[in-house]
Amino acid sequence: MAHRKLRLGAFIMATGHHIAAWRHPGSQVDSGVNIDHYISVAQLAERGKFDQVFVADSPGVWEQGSKESFGRQGRISHFEPVTLWSALAVVTKHIGFVATASTTYEDPYLLARKFASLDHISKGRAAWNVVTTGNDSVYGNFGLDKHPDPEVRYEKAHEFLDVVKGLWDSFEDDAFLRDPDSGVYFDPDKLHALNHHGKYHKVAGPLNLERSPQGHPVIVQAGSSEPGRELAAATAEAIFTAWTSLEEAQAFYRDVKGRLAKYGRRPEQLLILPGISPVIGRTQEEAEAKWAELQKLIHPSVGLATIERFWPGEDLSQWDLDAPPPYYPTPEAGRNSRHHVVIELARREKFTVRQLYEYLAGARGHWVVVGTPQKIADEMQQWFENGAADGFNVMPPVLPESLEDFVDLVIPELQRRGLFRTEYEGTTLRENLGLDKPQNRYAVKAAKAA
Amino acid sequence: MAHRKLRLGAFIMATGHHIAAWRHPGSQVDSGVNIDHYISVAQLAERGKFDQVFVADSPGVWEQGSKESFGRQGRISHFEPVTLWSALAVVTKHIGFVATASTTYEDPYLLARKFASLDHISKGRAAWNVVTTGNDSVYGNFGLDKHPDPEVRYEKAHEFLDVVKGLWDSFEDDAFLRDPDSGVYFDPDKLHALNHHGKYHKVAGPLNLERSPQGHPVIVQAGSSEPGRELAAATAEAIFTAWTSLEEAQAFYRDVKGRLAKYGRRPEQLLILPGISPVIGRTQEEAEAKWAELQKLIHPSVGLATIERFWPGEDLSQWDLDAPPPYYPTPEAGRNSRHHVVIELARREKFTVRQLYEYLAGARGHWVVVGTPQKIADEMQQWFENGAADGFNVMPPVLPESLEDFVDLVIPELQRRGLFRTEYEGTTLRENLGLDKPQNRYAVKAAKAA
Ligand SMILES: Cc1cc2nc3c(=O)[nH]c(=O)nc-3n(C[C@H](O)[C@H](O)[C@H](O)COP(=O)(O)O)c2cc1C
Ligand SMILES: Cc1cc2nc3c(=O)[nH]c(=O)nc-3n(C[C@H](O)[C@H](O)[C@H](O)COP(=O)(O)O)c2cc1C
Repeated sequence: MAHRKLRLGAFIMATGHHIAAWRHPGSQVDSGVNIDHYISVAQLAERGKFDQVFVADSPGVWEQGSKESFGRQGRISHFEPVTLWSALAVVTKHIGFVATASTTYEDPYLLARKFASLDHISKGRAAWNVVTTGNDSVYGNFGLDKHPDPEVRYEKAHEFLDVVKGLWDSFEDDAFLRDPDSGVYFDPDKLHALNHHGKYHKVAGPLNLERSPQGHPVIVQAGSSEPGRELAAATAEAIFTAWTSLEEAQAFYRDVKGRLAKYGRRPEQLLILPGISPVIGRTQEEAEAKWAELQKLIHPSVGLATIERFWPGEDLSQWDLDAPPPYYPTPEAGRNSRHHVVIELARREKFTVRQLYEYLAGARGHWVVVGTPQKIADEMQQWFENGAADGFNVMPPVLPESLEDFVDLVIPELQRRGLFRTEYEGTTLRENLGLDKPQNRYAVKAAKAA
Repeated sequence: MAHRKLRLGAFIMATGHHIAAWRHPGSQVDSGVNIDHYISVAQLAERGKFDQVFVADSPGVWEQGSKESFGRQGRISHFEPVTLWSALAVVTKHIGFVATASTTYEDPYLLARKFASLDHISKGRAAWNVVTTGNDSVYGNFGLDKHPDPEVRYEKAHEFLDVVKGLWDSFEDDAFLRDPDSGVYFDPDKLHALNHHGKYHKVAGPLNLERSPQGHPVIVQAGSSEPGRELAAATAEAIFTAWTSLEEAQAFYRDVKGRLAKYGRRPEQLLILPGISPVIGRTQEEAEAKWAELQKLIHPSVGLATIERFWPGEDLSQWDLDAPPPYYPTPEAGRNSRHHVVIELARREKFTVRQLYEYLAGARGHWVVVGTPQKIADEMQQWFENGAADGFNVMPPVLPESLEDFVDLVIPELQRRGLFRTEYEGTTLRENLGLDKPQNRYAVKAAKAA
């Protein structure tokens, strides 16, 4: 495995992943709507030779919480991901763009179109983070009184993906002749209508856009529940996940890679990318001081807002911040896998209320590593070389500052160790990630018939 | 009216508006998916001080027609408009971006979001061409067996626009404090959930994006039927239209401007922009030769495909191309206004079949002017100064060639006559078009209550 290289994504969260990042002088305070900020962040990540940048998304406001906490959070106003990445595609050359979009609330024809469009505009650097959407501020925006159940959402997700991939194959790769002399622009026999008629979707097709440079955008998945893992095994080419210990990450890695064979897929066709939120100092003390400085910026009402969803119906403002929570609830049926993980962790670590919210506030429960570039590289190397990760989704606590630190201090260290590229290998995101270009389903059919 | 200036949009149709443009050496043959082509075209239009660029759209393939004609048309594969304009927004500074999107087939929350996003990314240069969508290759992509009736589509369009505008007002303009010291990011009292519950849509809100630089994108409309005009009068700030004679254009202009008062609006709040497709030569002969050269490139099957929809059920391939159509049908109820216009024209002008399709193939029935820059400027000036137009939607027959001609030859002529700007007046599209920034509905309410 001498040539196996880390895959690195930069998970870009407006002012940064730390919940109080917007109050920190190293952040850009209006970054959710500041295109120049995103341009410089994407160019910075490209200078660091990152594979991709990624934005999370939900078609609704992220947080609510108490009125006191609501107005103290810096993430409420932000660009729609595909329009954002499309703008950045023309001011970058190499970096890939992972946009999140919901199979529960978007329309498959429109979604297929916008992602194919992004793949063309970026000349083969688009990816779709497929999510089923769980936060409560969303369903009302689409006329519903609650989310469909998770099983329904995942069943729909499978069908949705099938439709979208079918639409992306509407034209075979060699459908376009564009020959002015004969006057033939394309070969209608190489255009295929999908005529999908399923349980959740009825879509005729064809798509009004030819096959994109990558065949289709890279498919990413980010759910860790049982049906989430199954969706990933069946369809995804990369999976984002959140673990805080090597053992948990290894168990997840084994589990998910083990599911691929039954779909006729090889382990290297699905990249597993846990999150890491690095707090970087030239010395351990400097790193810890940075972290403490950030934690100090959390207003208690904002801290409590990060955990109140785990204790539904409870008024947390009465709790003693410096004692453990008075009880640990059993998550309701239908709650996503993150709930289980967080409550289990609080119990195991015997966190006080403040410690619990400080823990979550850092990177919403993702793995936070506070230390020198060497220490951070050590940890990443350990996970990478011990069956826990194919790479990482790097979650800078403060943007742009922490990403600058990572690019200037950690990347060179990873490169010195031979763990990370010094030049991009290809021109498309697939080529950089070492993923195959998928064949067109109709071309495959024709080849089999011949 | 000494200072009244022409408003000019460039209507960008992939290889150009002429149906055979893709076979012409002055076009970029793969332009529908060539981002570099669009970048240079937008930059060219900006060099010409155009107010805006515009793309038409439909969430389905444009043409079908006979199999013979289908593969000979160059417009089937193209970018989705909002992703396209978003990419161009960061490589231009002044020009506005009009994207078409359908109120019949898109979702109001997602649409509000992507257009607000585009308005932020472009720093106030976005516009939405509101269409109800009429072509038959669309409804099947959204699970339907036919389009809703036009009256239903327009009724839905009114409600849809109302919802979208409501979502755009979710945050008052001064909602964001972003004050690191106090820790207050925004004022929750200045965030408003829409809670719309109407006949066609149920949308809670709020939007997860603050009010955009223009208040909201400029609203454009392009339907000329009775309900289309009414929608424009009620909501649009610009209207695209297609007339081939001064008298028709004047009648339309009077009619639409006359409808504004009942909505409490002033005539200058709705700009009327007919299409003009200019074929430009340094001499009249040169222009006519160019035009003839283009017409010669039309394959007869492609020509017939442009008119067969007006004779539904008929096999046109049997017709004598050099005789008038054997009969003139009465358009079915529910057909859009363009059908009436085209059939009436064919009858009035006693066109042969070939003449009719050559006429339509030029710019799909829009006004084609073949001549010198002076002649083209004369015609534009006549319409502009005689109550037929506030400006034009310029439809280059071949792209980029015909737009280069327009920018280099016609724009300077319009400028010399004092009819067109020599510098952009403002930074947003609204400022350049002379349109007011709309007030936030909640701020207005609060001001009234005070
Ligand atoms: C790194 C990471 C990023 C995620 N991003 C999103 C997101 O942008 N939008 C979203 O709705 N869910 C996001 N999720 C959540 C999951 O995609 C998933 O929808 C949720 O956890 C519920 O599914 P599950 O029960 O399978 O975990 C993310 C999860 C992880 C680990
Ligand atoms: C310049 C111009 C551009 C248009 N662009 C579109 C378009 O992009 N998509 C579309 O569906 N209809 C487009 N139309 C058609 C109208 O918007 C309208 O939907 C159609 O004509 C039916 O409505 P009507 O019966 O009111 O005319 C356009 C019309 C004109 C004049």
